[in-house]
Amino acid sequence: MSIERYDIVIVGAGPVGLLLSTCLARWGYKIKHIDMRPVPTVTGRADGIQPRSLDLLRNMGLKRAIMANEPAKVFEVAFWDPNSSGEGIHRTGTWASCPKFIDARYPFTTLLHQGLIEKVFIEDLAKHNVKVQRPWKITSFNTDGVDKHHPVEVGISHVEGEEHETIRTKYLFSGEGARSFIREQLGVKITHKDPIQHVWGVMDGVVRTDFPDIKMKCTIHSDAGSIMVIPREANMVRLYIQIASSTDADWNPRKFATTEDVQRAAKKILQPYWIEWDRVEWYSVYPIGQGIADRYTLDERVFMGGDCCHTHSPKAGQGMNTAFLDAQNLAWKIHHVESGFADRSILKSYESERKLIAENLLNFDAQYSKLFSQRQPSAGEVHSASNAEQPAEENEFIKMFKSSCEFTSGYGVAYDENIFNWSESHPAQSALFLSNKKGETTQRTGRILSPATVTRVSDANVVHLEQEIPVNGSYRIYLFAGKYDRTKQAIIDFAANVNRKDSFYTAYSRRDIDSVSYHEPHNPHSLFFTFATIFNAHRPEIEIKSMLPSVLVRYFDHVYADDVWDQRTPDAQAAAHAKMGLSESEGGVVVVRPDGYVGCVVRLVEGAGTVDALNAYFGSFCTKALGRGATIATQARL
Amino acid sequence: MSIERYDIVIVGAGPVGLLLSTCLARWGYKIKHIDMRPVPTVTGRADGIQPRSLDLLRNMGLKRAIMANEPAKVFEVAFWDPNSSGEGIHRTGTWASCPKFIDARYPFTTLLHQGLIEKVFIEDLAKHNVKVQRPWKITSFNTDGVDKHHPVEVGISHVEGEEHETIRTKYLFSGEGARSFIREQLGVKITHKDPIQHVWGVMDGVVRTDFPDIKMKCTIHSDAGSIMVIPREANMVRLYIQIASSTDADWNPRKFATTEDVQRAAKKILQPYWIEWDRVEWYSVYPIGQGIADRYTLDERVFMGGDCCHTHSPKAGQGMNTAFLDAQNLAWKIHHVESGFADRSILKSYESERKLIAENLLNFDAQYSKLFSQRQPSAGEVHSASNAEQPAEENEFIKMFKSSCEFTSGYGVAYDENIFNWSESHPAQSALFLSNKKGETTQRTGRILSPATVTRVSDANVVHLEQEIPVNGSYRIYLFAGKYDRTKQAIIDFAANVNRKDSFYTAYSRRDIDSVSYHEPHNPHSLFFTFATIFNAHRPEIEIKSMLPSVLVRYFDHVYADDVWDQRTPDAQAAAHAKMGLSESEGGVVVVRPDGYVGCVVRLVEGAGTVDALNAYFGSFCTKALGRGATIATQARL
Repeated sequence: MSIERYDIVIVGAGPVGLLLSTCLARWGYKIKHIDMRPVPTVTGRADGIQPRSLDLLRNMGLKRAIMANEPAKVFEVAFWDPNSSGEGIHRTGTWASCPKFIDARYPFTTLLHQGLIEKVFIEDLAKHNVKVQRPWKITSFNTDGVDKHHPVEVGISHVEGEEHETIRTKYLFSGEGARSFIREQLGVKITHKDPIQHVWGVMDGVVRTDFPDIKMKCTIHSDAGSIMVIPREANMVRLYIQIASSTDADWNPRKFATTEDVQRAAKKILQPYWIEWDRVEWYSVYPIGQGIADRYTLDERVFMGGDCCHTHSPKAGQGMNTAFLDAQNLAWKIHHVESGFADRSILKSYESERKLIAENLLNFDAQYSKLFSQRQPSAGEVHSASNAEQPAEENEFIKMFKSSCEFTSGYGVAYDENIFNWSESHPAQSALFLSNKKGETTQRTGRILSPATVTRVSDANVVHLEQEIPVNGSYRIYLFAGKYDRTKQAIIDFAANVNRKDSFYTAYSRRDIDSVSYHEPHNPHSLFFTFATIFNAHRPEIEIKSMLPSVLVRYFDHVYADDVWDQRTPDAQAAAHAKMGLSESEGGVVVVRPDGYVGCVVRLVEGAGTVDALNAYFGSFCTKALGRGATIATQARL
Repeated sequence: MSIERYDIVIVGAGPVGLLLSTCLARWGYKIKHIDMRPVPTVTGRADGIQPRSLDLLRNMGLKRAIMANEPAKVFEVAFWDPNSSGEGIHRTGTWASCPKFIDARYPFTTLLHQGLIEKVFIEDLAKHNVKVQRPWKITSFNTDGVDKHHPVEVGISHVEGEEHETIRTKYLFSGEGARSFIREQLGVKITHKDPIQHVWGVMDGVVRTDFPDIKMKCTIHSDAGSIMVIPREANMVRLYIQIASSTDADWNPRKFATTEDVQRAAKKILQPYWIEWDRVEWYSVYPIGQGIADRYTLDERVFMGGDCCHTHSPKAGQGMNTAFLDAQNLAWKIHHVESGFADRSILKSYESERKLIAENLLNFDAQYSKLFSQRQPSAGEVHSASNAEQPAEENEFIKMFKSSCEFTSGYGVAYDENIFNWSESHPAQSALFLSNKKGETTQRTGRILSPATVTRVSDANVVHLEQEIPVNGSYRIYLFAGKYDRTKQAIIDFAANVNRKDSFYTAYSRRDIDSVSYHEPHNPHSLFFTFATIFNAHRPEIEIKSMLPSVLVRYFDHVYADDVWDQRTPDAQAAAHAKMGLSESEGGVVVVRPDGYVGCVVRLVEGAGTVDALNAYFGSFCTKALGRGATIATQARL
């Protein structure tokens, strides 16, 4: 009997496994996805979707299905502290969960039971004929290299039964969570930041109370202990109570705190307010240690992500969000290697990019915990920090709050300079690269693209530019074309050079280019690039066919008018250009990675220079030599 | 065998029947709903949802399900006219489908195949155990009064089979469309505005073309004929071609124009552009006469609505939208009569309100057709009309365009003064009623409430105030509470008087008031009223329990901070107050009918006056005597 072969075997159907699976299934990979649990998450567990994650889910076309569950939305956080009298609590202040200084489309945290989130992914997977095989577990794996195309042999078996399968795969991924068979087998160690096991009680339920902020996220300190309140869908509320800490390995926290114990504690803490439970949906006590895996992969064949690699307190609701971004980061890199676009070495950047984020997360978690337990901000401080119009007097606390908000909203994620994230030390060198450090653009490589609202020319729809190209595995090349009379020749030259045989674009044309549907909006020429052109003009002034060369005309639905006023750049004529920090008349080219992070920004000039710079950038990690020919004269015309 | 009894029998499951059914099913009525077609609409038919209708669908909680189908959105309309050379066409101009001077949340038309829209309603009905019985037709009905509670006997039978049912009902509704058995039986005549039968060819399909505006709504005049282009979901486009007109009853338009004829005509009209069809999904030729039913009901037991009552050209996409509003208008009136809240005489207002709208629609349709066929606006005119910032030089054409946009967007719907729509001739008289005509408020009775964005106090969510109370059959009483220090006593007095036994509010308390769920947000006290309170304050300054009397505290989730800046009232401190034209410090009370139209606006004053005015207003159509007691002193305190 021949052994079944897969592109990837994914173990664990939590957020990290499901997002990875969903991306790769859409891109046509053959997936074996297993999970030990007989059914998806029924109650409890993670539930906070941060603003940045909501952007991502929308970009994957999953936001509407998530929102159909009517999740709770957290716009503000309230702080409650003990009264000086020693009895009862009072509100010290509130602040925005995602303040105005963060340019977020969705400035709130979305709270929804993890099972409902998983369901959205599972239904999407079904459309691509991927079904999670349950309850199955991994029993062995071995990167034996017997088959060089499918170097990993994996054994899996039914959790309870006798059934067993041996399969081969190109990649194996562990989204197993904190207790990972794969991580243990690899011998990858967890580095603990803090030897103390913090024990949390968490309870989801429907309550009645006169506590006024029960529908807000609250951190409540009282002389009787501390609670975190998190609103949920369907009138539910989650209470986190930090019960105790211990370094004793034999200590059993479940014995320590029953449901009733926690309810009793909550009642005490909330005094002078009353609280009663209509029902308790879920209750759990679990110890959490801050830990991070030393490696995310050893051989770029067996990968890990999510809770398998990093554990921390639930205080800032970062677990699921970090898991999502782990998965997204890995998905397109595997895709680019397996489709022959990028060199296998790019897979090393999964660990280097994501481990840094996890380290930041753990540092943040430690700081955040300290902030919660030590410092009670006054209402005045809070007000100035959350008010973008009046520049705040930035004391140490506000600075910390500010960086926390960026981090907790997901917009603080910053990947270091590397092969994807251009910097002055990048192998691609050209005077045309624009640098954020030098103030030449507001866009920072390794950071998310700024959101911008524009008008689509083809149908006059007002759209969110950063959402126009879906998570399709392609680089997003935004040609900010400024004023047409200033950039006309530069656009012609850009197209002419992009059409050269050795350009990044033509070198990776689709093999099926002649049979691509007329209605394909994103990838008519190449699976690795989608172009968008944005003019500083009113929509009716733009005639796509007479103003653009044919290669760009083909991206008919990705031509935009930068004619929508933006409160953040009130004086700009072309708000999107202005938000990118580009000249409103000269424009510029912004290259965004398939995951939405800025790769590089290049000046738009006449001649071959702009495309030469892009050839150098992509050539630094592509499989083919790009742009090695002599620079060409600018003779092409429309 | 006893005869089965229903609250309502609805014949026809098109937009009008489905919306009526959906409302009444949610409010607990027993419904028999039949349709002659074996299945819902498969292809073609109406497809345009106007901005106002989208508000309504969202208010019913159905918008997300509609939008999940990824409909096309029309933001602009393009006009194409013959070249002066006599060959080919060129664009004369474009204008906004819903220009900025209209304060719309969704300034676009949503295009989606009628079957997908019907499906959303059918799925919602299933949640309330209502299933459309198909293919069944009505065969007889008789308002015999044998059973005074169910005065109408109805015979229905399977379209093809021998099966037959005789049932009794309180109400019978015809949503049968233009060919109505019920209307014929009643002997209600159609008045035709125009003896000419206009014949339209309509074709849905997927095309390839170099015509640049194929994704816009276009009106194309050429020397070879005229076409209307309407984009659709899934890369489809609808073409309307007015084929011919005739007064000859024997003339068969289907013989006149085949699919190929229409495609050939389209190719000619679109010259110099080319067009090819990938597929044709639907093609139909149909004669349309402008007609309006003389009556919508004879006895307020048998009602008609939708196409049964008004037919017209499809040019402005008004059919389905008018049908929706017919149904919504009737639904709450039946509900208020059957639940004992309002006098049966209010049912007369269904015809008087909706027939006026249909007459306006037909007049508009005639004007619009004339506009399309006679006058080609220049780009300059168009620009000034669609640009709200620069006041337009209003020539006759622009004025007509402006009133057309209001009408086609659905915001031009204006119900005349009547028992619901307060005016100076209303039986309720008080010096406290505020009049739009006198400039005391921007809100006009019989018109939709202005949209306003506010912050919900309980959870700090930024929300659309006009959407906060769903279509639940209740009057929406918005207490714009201004500045608390100015209105504190007036609010106390308002609550004290509302709590009086003879107030509109207390007189119609829920019978099950003691068993209402703690989590009921909209109707804790009464099924006919929902209160909302809006303060001119920042959210953190509002403490619901200390600032509001208990009757208003109970509407915990309907207390708002008017603290969100609005581009339309940039200098206001409290934008929602300002948009309503109310004093930002003194506030006022806006009473909105269950369908979202303004009923009356009353000053908020200390003493009993405000509630007295409301008692007089509601007392004019309620079943109970209200507020007949002496006005009370303002002694109640928090």
